[in-house]
Amino acid sequence: MTKKHSRPLRAVFVGFGNVAQRLAAMLTVERHLFPGLEKLQLVPVAIFTRQRGALVEPAGIDLAAALERFRASGAFPDAPMPVMQALQELDYDVLVELSTLNIADRGEPAVTHVRNALQRRRHAVTANKGPAAFAYRELSALARKKGVRFLFESAVMDGTPVFNLMQALAGCRVTGVSGILNTTTNFVISRLEMGETMDSAVKTAQRLGFAEADPSLDLDGWDAAAKTAILANVFLGADIDPLQVERRGIGDLTPEAVAKAAASGRRFKLICRAELENGKVRAKVAPEEIAADQFFAAVNGKGAALRLETDMMGPFWIVQENPGLNDTAAGVLQDLLTVAASR
Amino acid sequence: MTKKHSRPLRAVFVGFGNVAQRLAAMLTVERHLFPGLEKLQLVPVAIFTRQRGALVEPAGIDLAAALERFRASGAFPDAPMPVMQALQELDYDVLVELSTLNIADRGEPAVTHVRNALQRRRHAVTANKGPAAFAYRELSALARKKGVRFLFESAVMDGTPVFNLMQALAGCRVTGVSGILNTTTNFVISRLEMGETMDSAVKTAQRLGFAEADPSLDLDGWDAAAKTAILANVFLGADIDPLQVERRGIGDLTPEAVAKAAASGRRFKLICRAELENGKVRAKVAPEEIAADQFFAAVNGKGAALRLETDMMGPFWIVQENPGLNDTAAGVLQDLLTVAASR
Repeated sequence: MTKKHSRPLRAVFVGFGNVAQRLAAMLTVERHLFPGLEKLQLVPVAIFTRQRGALVEPAGIDLAAALERFRASGAFPDAPMPVMQALQELDYDVLVELSTLNIADRGEPAVTHVRNALQRRRHAVTANKGPAAFAYRELSALARKKGVRFLFESAVMDGTPVFNLMQALAGCRVTGVSGILNTTTNFVISRLEMGETMDSAVKTAQRLGFAEADPSLDLDGWDAAAKTAILANVFLGADIDPLQVERRGIGDLTPEAVAKAAASGRRFKLICRAELENGKVRAKVAPEEIAADQFFAAVNGKGAALRLETDMMGPFWIVQENPGLNDTAAGVLQDLLTVAASR
Repeated sequence: MTKKHSRPLRAVFVGFGNVAQRLAAMLTVERHLFPGLEKLQLVPVAIFTRQRGALVEPAGIDLAAALERFRASGAFPDAPMPVMQALQELDYDVLVELSTLNIADRGEPAVTHVRNALQRRRHAVTANKGPAAFAYRELSALARKKGVRFLFESAVMDGTPVFNLMQALAGCRVTGVSGILNTTTNFVISRLEMGETMDSAVKTAQRLGFAEADPSLDLDGWDAAAKTAILANVFLGADIDPLQVERRGIGDLTPEAVAKAAASGRRFKLICRAELENGKVRAKVAPEEIAADQFFAAVNGKGAALRLETDMMGPFWIVQENPGLNDTAAGVLQDLLTVAASR
């Protein structure tokens, strides 16, 4: 352990939406609340948004001032260069990819951003599910080859340890995973159980700020399929993408069907599954009826749960009670601390 | 990373009961089932039992043969030297302390065994709750000072990552823990709910092999208090022992009380809690009535659950479905792999 930590991590941010702004606040104005961040000194040299301009300051951006400015004016100036040029030319240590999942474009442009950072021997940290869902095998091999880190703790269950847990599971091999991993559908089903219509339940989730703008990403199971692909790729050695996950969303669920299940003591849940079957990985997302005394049934509203089967131990679970933006930002911060510690 | 791994870990085992025998089987005859153990080469130089003799072979014990011999004859020869002498004089790398918790003797002799190993710059791995419950602050400081590891993943929730999780939680500070951590009482309460008497339920647990021989360790909450003390010491920086945990067992629970709770949709659970109150740690074990839709209520039979509150994230849980001896052995193996990797 050298004293190199004292040199701050120079970061390129791609995306400055809710998660990035939360992260920026935790690293600046709220920093005193989190003593565990002491070892993380981070200075952005560029912050790109999709449609609201960019800041590029090779000497370092004042993150607190940038956050205040963006919140006040809703935009940065026009970008002085494209993201790709910045990733190729700027002097930085870590790419912080916080753009959102794009299924139609197969995880792009985030996959390309991460690939470019890794190729330049820069670490890549992302909360975007795209890179690990569409290109895990390629990008993790590239990171290993270049001696840098490709980290995405927030991509599944926010900052609750999922991928970082692998280290803790020394000696164990994961043989199967299942979970309730999409907050929006779990919340929507809970509202259907209260007699609300699908339409109204989705609007409530959007109003509370945790449904995607395009609700089909959640309702049709794409978000869940992306997470399932990541889990299959990381834990089961698969090389699949979200389009290869058998997928059925909750669009067909009605308050009536949900009420009928409840009458026989059961609850619908959108369950993700990935398991090894005769050496092959099978990955699936579909609504299932769960008996009321099963653990999945106890995951309410915005909760999430992941069940891990291993070769050595009986199944165990990781459960999130009621995650918010802080949880997602915390996962990115954990990854950044891992990068800082690995220098 | 050097090639030093190829030199096997030389181990002194203290205790050769159920967990140690399971561990020995997993490391030998069952080894091919667990590819994750590839990096763990371990050779005992001594195996001590409490009342059934010992093996001491400085050149290395054939663990598979020792296990077979012990299972066939029920004993080793008389010990050629006391444990303490072995810990002082033998050439070994790691103490594997698998004796059982002793509350009356304040965790002894396991605490002394661990202290002696650490003082000689030997690593100490233990599934015994005593050392971390009665002397965590002293022993962890000693290990740090001597540059060796003091590990006890199995002491709470077996091999399910609890303490190894701290690494994964980079940046987060734990601010409170609660849990169902004693399998026997959880099982006994489940049987009371089925109308069984306390006596009969305890006998069933003993017959199934997971209640302590002295049931008061479980029923009076001592095992739970030891685990709560460890969690408070490790996660909240406390320096307490099990006697300083407010403690009420389940001895007073009756099938009638349990049935009455069930009639109003509630379940009794023995809940462990440790939290920071005005900078002070408060630790407590007591039966609580839990509403049926709460997570704790979904932890059935032999299950266990731990809820962690942190400064950065919403609460999350680690849950064990149905742990057995393999799970406990897996925790010890994880610790041994950590030791092997740290050389």
